[in-house]
Amino acid sequence: MLDEYRSSIDNIDAALIHLLAERFKVTRRVGAHKVAAGLPPADPDREAAQVQRMRDLAESAGLDPVFSEKFLRFVIDEVIRHHEVAGDGFAGNGGG
Amino acid sequence: MLDEYRSSIDNIDAALIHLLAERFKVTRRVGAHKVAAGLPPADPDREAAQVQRMRDLAESAGLDPVFSEKFLRFVIDEVIRHHEVAGDGFAGNGGG
Repeated sequence: MLDEYRSSIDNIDAALIHLLAERFKVTRRVGAHKVAAGLPPADPDREAAQVQRMRDLAESAGLDPVFSEKFLRFVIDEVIRHHEVAGDGFAGNGGG
Repeated sequence: MLDEYRSSIDNIDAALIHLLAERFKVTRRVGAHKVAAGLPPADPDREAAQVQRMRDLAESAGLDPVFSEKFLRFVIDEVIRHHEVAGDGFAGNGGG
């Protein structure tokens, strides 16, 4: 039984990792696009909409909305770190 | 273009939230199973295997392995919080 649960957790974790890899591919494109288009890195309205959407999705999925917001923040922090490493001056560009 | 990227990000985020919700359902079952079976909450060997697996998956997916480990830790912290809230004495039971 424990092995069966763990195999489900491992499958879910693999899916999560692959989705996160894909998400960072898209946010890298967003950063490059914003640089090319001369758009500002941060977009507070977009970020607020993302937070609200994540909370709504979490509630409908039976997940703690507070956790979903923490999760979005965790991912955004990594996006910011990518921009810092890339040195593209887009450290403020979080959620994409 | 930006709208298109953002719609991809939103789709990926929705998938992530639903997978996380499912993952926590399984870890709750793991916790209940361990209590019923009298198994210890923590399993350092399992956790070490999970970390290594996440890092390997991350590398093959083009994701920073360090981030994948941070992500696993982030999720495990939430699992521990669930056990604390549940008061099942399983606060040490992280990765499942």
